[in-house]
Amino acid sequence: MTVPYEAIYPGPWKDSTTFSPAVRCGEWLLISGMTAVDENRNIVGVGDMAAQARYIYKKIGAVLAAAGAGFEHVVETVDYVVTLEGYDKTAEVRRELFKGPPYPAATGVVVAGLVRPQALIEIKATARIPRPSL
Amino acid sequence: MTVPYEAIYPGPWKDSTTFSPAVRCGEWLLISGMTAVDENRNIVGVGDMAAQARYIYKKIGAVLAAAGAGFEHVVETVDYVVTLEGYDKTAEVRRELFKGPPYPAATGVVVAGLVRPQALIEIKATARIPRPSL
Amino acid sequence: MTVPYEAIYPGPWKDSTTFSPAVRCGEWLLISGMTAVDENRNIVGVGDMAAQARYIYKKIGAVLAAAGAGFEHVVETVDYVVTLEGYDKTAEVRRELFKGPPYPAATGVVVAGLVRPQALIEIKATARIPRPSL
Repeated sequence: MTVPYEAIYPGPWKDSTTFSPAVRCGEWLLISGMTAVDENRNIVGVGDMAAQARYIYKKIGAVLAAAGAGFEHVVETVDYVVTLEGYDKTAEVRRELFKGPPYPAATGVVVAGLVRPQALIEIKATARIPRPSL
Repeated sequence: MTVPYEAIYPGPWKDSTTFSPAVRCGEWLLISGMTAVDENRNIVGVGDMAAQARYIYKKIGAVLAAAGAGFEHVVETVDYVVTLEGYDKTAEVRRELFKGPPYPAATGVVVAGLVRPQALIEIKATARIPRPSL
Repeated sequence: MTVPYEAIYPGPWKDSTTFSPAVRCGEWLLISGMTAVDENRNIVGVGDMAAQARYIYKKIGAVLAAAGAGFEHVVETVDYVVTLEGYDKTAEVRRELFKGPPYPAATGVVVAGLVRPQALIEIKATARIPRPSL
């Protein structure tokens, strides 16, 4: 189907997957919710939410790079966690990557589960990449 | 109240409802989370998540049509499911409607409940309808 | 880090916090999910979801005002509630503030928990503040 957006793939992606890792439309980059699953479909950082967050942000960084952007373009995140245990430690990962203030807007809620077994956190992000002014 | 957006109604809508099915602002169409509730307030596809997803997308299609758009304009979805049982089967519905790749971005989480009893899935969608270039 | 957005602070804000209450980019104002926590970190409206919603919207109103906007600019909300008990009563708060129809788009789901103990509801909002046409 001809679509008015560009799918962003930071690496190999199966055609059978019914979503894109990210979609760019205009100045916006909408990044799908990600868990700490590696290319072999294993969770990185089993039992350690901060380690999972770090790996997720590494994946988000790859998506941003594929769109010609960086962490400074992230304007909003939503964290879905399965427990509050260890959630406070993910702040350190944000501190390192976003180097704020300022920081993106953020929302965090505890969900009843995530699609991936052993995933403790899923992060959805939105970035905005302004067009260069002429 | 005078608002800088347009509410989109695909059919009759009660004035007492405190949200709009969708809101168009500029090139964006923000579609409220929907469950498989029909016009008589009954759930379509009781016990069958894929059937519910199909009905929800039918409703989303009606909203898109009311805004002069189609499924090709959907850029992002968020699925809130009450169980993972049957969730994989909703991919087939996406395949039929979006005819990708490419596909919209997507996020899916398991929630503790939905407002409608018997609802197994709620889908929130965002579309972008580019203005024709002059 | 130099960022292509403006963080909006409606009042004092700790530099160590790794998110902004809201972020403005272009015509968009992305407001972080908020609970009914007051400046002393106590929940307002313990056990009363509508009271919590009212306080949250007061906080959202302060963010909107800090961005030069008002409730008429809110285009979308997402409610995360920990129970359905009392959720219907939050509609009255929306009715008072948004004075619709029309109303913003809205999504509401039951989550397994919120970060703040005693919080019954968290509300995330998006506003769009059109630039004056020349």
